[in-house]
Amino acid sequence: MKEFQLIEHYFRNKGQKRRDVELSIGDDCALVNPAENKSIAISCDTLVENVHFLADIPAHALGYKSLAVNLSDLAAMGAEPAWFTLAITLPSVEPEWLERFSDGLFEIAEYYGIALIGGDTTRGPRCISITINGQVIKGSALTRGGACNGDWIYVTGTLGDSALGLDILRGAKIVNTEDKEYLINRHYYPTPRVLAGQALRNLATSAIDLSDGLVSDIQHVLKASKVGAIIDVSQIPLSASIKANLSREEALSYALTGGEDYELLFTVPESQRGAIDTALIHAGVKFVKIGQICAGDKLKLVDDGEPFVPVSRGFEHF
Amino acid sequence: MKEFQLIEHYFRNKGQKRRDVELSIGDDCALVNPAENKSIAISCDTLVENVHFLADIPAHALGYKSLAVNLSDLAAMGAEPAWFTLAITLPSVEPEWLERFSDGLFEIAEYYGIALIGGDTTRGPRCISITINGQVIKGSALTRGGACNGDWIYVTGTLGDSALGLDILRGAKIVNTEDKEYLINRHYYPTPRVLAGQALRNLATSAIDLSDGLVSDIQHVLKASKVGAIIDVSQIPLSASIKANLSREEALSYALTGGEDYELLFTVPESQRGAIDTALIHAGVKFVKIGQICAGDKLKLVDDGEPFVPVSRGFEHF
Repeated sequence: MKEFQLIEHYFRNKGQKRRDVELSIGDDCALVNPAENKSIAISCDTLVENVHFLADIPAHALGYKSLAVNLSDLAAMGAEPAWFTLAITLPSVEPEWLERFSDGLFEIAEYYGIALIGGDTTRGPRCISITINGQVIKGSALTRGGACNGDWIYVTGTLGDSALGLDILRGAKIVNTEDKEYLINRHYYPTPRVLAGQALRNLATSAIDLSDGLVSDIQHVLKASKVGAIIDVSQIPLSASIKANLSREEALSYALTGGEDYELLFTVPESQRGAIDTALIHAGVKFVKIGQICAGDKLKLVDDGEPFVPVSRGFEHF
Repeated sequence: MKEFQLIEHYFRNKGQKRRDVELSIGDDCALVNPAENKSIAISCDTLVENVHFLADIPAHALGYKSLAVNLSDLAAMGAEPAWFTLAITLPSVEPEWLERFSDGLFEIAEYYGIALIGGDTTRGPRCISITINGQVIKGSALTRGGACNGDWIYVTGTLGDSALGLDILRGAKIVNTEDKEYLINRHYYPTPRVLAGQALRNLATSAIDLSDGLVSDIQHVLKASKVGAIIDVSQIPLSASIKANLSREEALSYALTGGEDYELLFTVPESQRGAIDTALIHAGVKFVKIGQICAGDKLKLVDDGEPFVPVSRGFEHF
């Protein structure tokens, strides 16, 4: 089966149709017509087998997750998803695998109204690279650089579930049967906070998505905004599943240093707290205040007023 | 060395600055502001080690070529290069290799005024995936679908040099010392016909870049345009280097079925032939008429009026 036939069959004429796509897969380039008065937000994420995903990941989950992690970058800018390209490298053409992969990919693509407009299919070690395009009204994109002294720090959802899910898959952790599926699903099927990100525009002063873990990712905000932060670990949102299976200390370690939650961390001035409550409740997303921006350039973790150091989880996430 | 430090050092703050780039590498997304009244042309090409390039390709050539093949897709649409993202997967961080790779990449990026705005650096088997963005006035992009019965078929440059260069590198062919460097360079450093493509807008009825070989690539035009074609192989442009080292039959085989020339093939109605001459001479590109579009859906090769069948080159390009 030749490259273009493969693209044709599994990816062409599938998924979302958009009126702003003038020409889709099948020519040298796709042609899209952006809305006037909008900037285009562009991001690129690559997933490599045995580096970013286990070799036995279900194809449906890989298709879904490949796009979800890219959508999460758009969410962190407050952008509306529009178009994406897919570069997929596979050791061989396996029709069943491709069918399930494309089902997972288009499931999330349709949910967020984003169109696949091009890509490249090549033979080689398994690797998925997506470049995503979103639109955002000029001047209203969220960045990492706007956090100010005194702003409150929030996160969406719950933290640590994905990293615990990965450890279950790797056989490094054993949990109750009733929690196992939920935790593995949080690893395979992260929820990009696209609507929440859009709701935060003109309200939040900065935003980032949590891909490497809170302690690591917040540093990007602190560096870009030239500020410090205090996080109260007793406020970190933990799921019932993580609490049911781990000690508090261990759960906090996953929540603070585990990766791939794809929740949003954002900062809000006191004057906008009421507006944020209204906006995010409207977006149907849970969120909680976990700390405050301060002067300096350091991150300080506290627990009930005392300094806090997360316990090591023994080995690092990927 | 961590992923972002690697990006920081070799790719950030390098190359072309553009006023339409509001936010470049360093946040969750880049932000760009497209010109009004323009469509965005988007394409994606992946190069995998031992599939699209030999393991011993010089890093500078790989950097250059990775972007050149993507620029060639923009050229085939008549689009002006604007921005690109780079997903690079490497087995290890080798500073010297990265230095030379980024030199090659930015050399061609600066020449064409295109800005690197984001990407992802991951560990794994060597693989380069670029997604490129260009701009083109709405309604003026060249596609594969507009060729009409009676249109003349042209190609730029000379054909077959890159495939012969590859065979020299693989040890499958031996040529004169004086031609060897030229042929290898045509393989390593293809010239995307960006200015020529722009000059063809509103004149050519269809265009495509020659990446897989003339006989293979022209089929996409015939299929998209629902036409047939007659190519006179005696008109195929051959370099002095290919003619000095191969029999006519063998040279034509490379020219017709060899890949990676990255020249443009385009179709022109009789009424625009004079205008095309003027436009392409202005763009400084050599070009020659090699055939004509006809009714039907077949490609017919003729040599001095007689049917022509290219000789097999023994083994296929990659």
